[in-house]
Amino acid sequence: MKINILGTHATKFGELWNISPRALAREAMENALNASGLKASDIDALYVGNMLSGILGNQANLGSLLVEELGVQVPAFRIEGACASGGLALHNAINSLKAGQYKTVLVLGIEKMTDHSQDEITNALMSAGSDEERLAGATFPGVYALMAQAYMQQYKVSEEDLACVSVKNHYHGTLNPKAQFQFPITIADVMRSAKIADPLKLLDCSPISDGAAAVVITSENILKKNKKPIQIIASEVATDTLSLHDRKSFTSLSAVVEASTKAYGKAGLKPSDIDVAEIHDCFSISEAIATEDLGFSKKGEGARDIAKGKRTLFKGDIICNPSGGLKACGHPVGATGIKQIVELTEQLRGEAGKRQVEKARIGLAHNVGGSGTIAAIHILQK
Amino acid sequence: MKINILGTHATKFGELWNISPRALAREAMENALNASGLKASDIDALYVGNMLSGILGNQANLGSLLVEELGVQVPAFRIEGACASGGLALHNAINSLKAGQYKTVLVLGIEKMTDHSQDEITNALMSAGSDEERLAGATFPGVYALMAQAYMQQYKVSEEDLACVSVKNHYHGTLNPKAQFQFPITIADVMRSAKIADPLKLLDCSPISDGAAAVVITSENILKKNKKPIQIIASEVATDTLSLHDRKSFTSLSAVVEASTKAYGKAGLKPSDIDVAEIHDCFSISEAIATEDLGFSKKGEGARDIAKGKRTLFKGDIICNPSGGLKACGHPVGATGIKQIVELTEQLRGEAGKRQVEKARIGLAHNVGGSGTIAAIHILQK
Repeated sequence: MKINILGTHATKFGELWNISPRALAREAMENALNASGLKASDIDALYVGNMLSGILGNQANLGSLLVEELGVQVPAFRIEGACASGGLALHNAINSLKAGQYKTVLVLGIEKMTDHSQDEITNALMSAGSDEERLAGATFPGVYALMAQAYMQQYKVSEEDLACVSVKNHYHGTLNPKAQFQFPITIADVMRSAKIADPLKLLDCSPISDGAAAVVITSENILKKNKKPIQIIASEVATDTLSLHDRKSFTSLSAVVEASTKAYGKAGLKPSDIDVAEIHDCFSISEAIATEDLGFSKKGEGARDIAKGKRTLFKGDIICNPSGGLKACGHPVGATGIKQIVELTEQLRGEAGKRQVEKARIGLAHNVGGSGTIAAIHILQK
Repeated sequence: MKINILGTHATKFGELWNISPRALAREAMENALNASGLKASDIDALYVGNMLSGILGNQANLGSLLVEELGVQVPAFRIEGACASGGLALHNAINSLKAGQYKTVLVLGIEKMTDHSQDEITNALMSAGSDEERLAGATFPGVYALMAQAYMQQYKVSEEDLACVSVKNHYHGTLNPKAQFQFPITIADVMRSAKIADPLKLLDCSPISDGAAAVVITSENILKKNKKPIQIIASEVATDTLSLHDRKSFTSLSAVVEASTKAYGKAGLKPSDIDVAEIHDCFSISEAIATEDLGFSKKGEGARDIAKGKRTLFKGDIICNPSGGLKACGHPVGATGIKQIVELTEQLRGEAGKRQVEKARIGLAHNVGGSGTIAAIHILQK
């Protein structure tokens, strides 16, 4: 069965203080429906990827609330798996089509984070961490800093090499009108930004963001009504331990390796077949490691390949994070996995404007929750 | 494709202050695996139905945490839809089998509620309500009391008739060693219990509970290894508005009517074919209305049929809540939808001990979230 993408929409990402969570969700849902040429009554179900509405918003039953917001009554599900909630929602939505249970479903990712204090946010985000790491006072920057230390030592990689991830993604962000940060930064800017958790500095870290993104997927034949069909040809999920100390390696995320290996297998593709990828760069180190775990770069060469421009628009081979990634486009956690699909769809349709990847035919989305505890990989084909 | 139930397990329901949420979850998961003759490494994925771990426990990424607790690394999903979280988790798990994505999955429902203060619990539960109802100070007893008032007035039903729901379910609870309340009550007991929200009294209301329940389902042929195959032959979900004031009727839940109509259609069955049902009796009025919405009783006759014994073990026709239901067995919200499946499986296998429904061949589970905002209906066949 073919899983076709119809319309998509991502809202502006950023500090959106003048819009409520449900209005933000509605904006993404209604625009994705409009882009699909559908009415709300044409969908069979709603899948919502969201991490924090319970903890921060005291809101349960979010799926039902949001179909009511659309003015229809269809089955609705909230799927939660930390920062991978968006990718996990899409995975379950795809399964519902393959099962024949639903034919056309709306998949939304939504998070509203900036209305809360730093303490509230830090505490809420660590709800996805392990007890041991929480009790030790570790935050996610701290946990990823440990990976960065191990990576730099093992592969003789410099802080400047890692900084190139943020420099690249900020450059891409300047080309994305929906990005939270649309200004360029230099390696020197990263190096002199405040230390968060050694060796990670402020500009190595993705921001706290608000945003929503939605896609309509269908198992029905859309060739007649849609001239640019994009298909999701693989959807795979894998998990790892919550704590770093239980893992064999600090410099590779086994959940990403496992899910991407399965996804390549299902799609009949190899890493070099990927033209464009949206990577879960919650920290600079995350993208460096991800490009290796996904097979784009050799082990230990991910950061250096990025520094050399191999993942950069208009000069690289496999372009990573043309949207600006989590670093520059922003990271409203539950929305991220769906925003990646929106970006890849625009890229494969040739509708990505100033940041269009040339001849983009195959795209990969890499969405991770916790410190690599769960990973969702999707492959899209033109 | 046949969806087969392998092993099942429900923990004791009640105020379980000496066990942590994850130990409680593990007890249910490991016993369900043991009952299936499987090891944790035999499952392809874990689906977790849970409503409140974020709000009450500041815990996200619950799926990943619980596969780690099992000592394996497989895809894991938390599905949330208020008190229907269990049923919705099962629905998505079934879709994953029908999609061919997974072959054997573990589905867990878990909630740990009694470690928190009444205020915390009340606030957390209302996270599933509508804004208008919350702002008006309504709690779920208040919202269901409005339905009870309308129902009693419209159909000339007495408080004593409604009380019979609780009397029946407490009687059933006396036969269930895992029930939170295993003592009988009388109509007089209900009538003189404290008013909660007129006309609902304390003994019209299900309790705050801790508990977990798990089932293993598989798409593989189990006839060889399992002499008592039980199949899930329908799984349907529907939604309604969050607020009562937006609905056409106060005395019928359209989500239940819609989901059960679809489920009967898929199963090729009619209401009178059901031998045993587990009903979401969060309040006495809920079961009265449910038996009408499910087609067991004529409109306005649900409560009176229960009062006449038509839903009671050893004398009724369609036996409702042999487990004791939410009222007597307990209502750990995310666990309820899965506990219903555990109970029905035991009934259809003839393993329900003192509360065995004679010649039970077909069972129905009715799981509702919010004030009827979302409903999940499953039909099981021997």
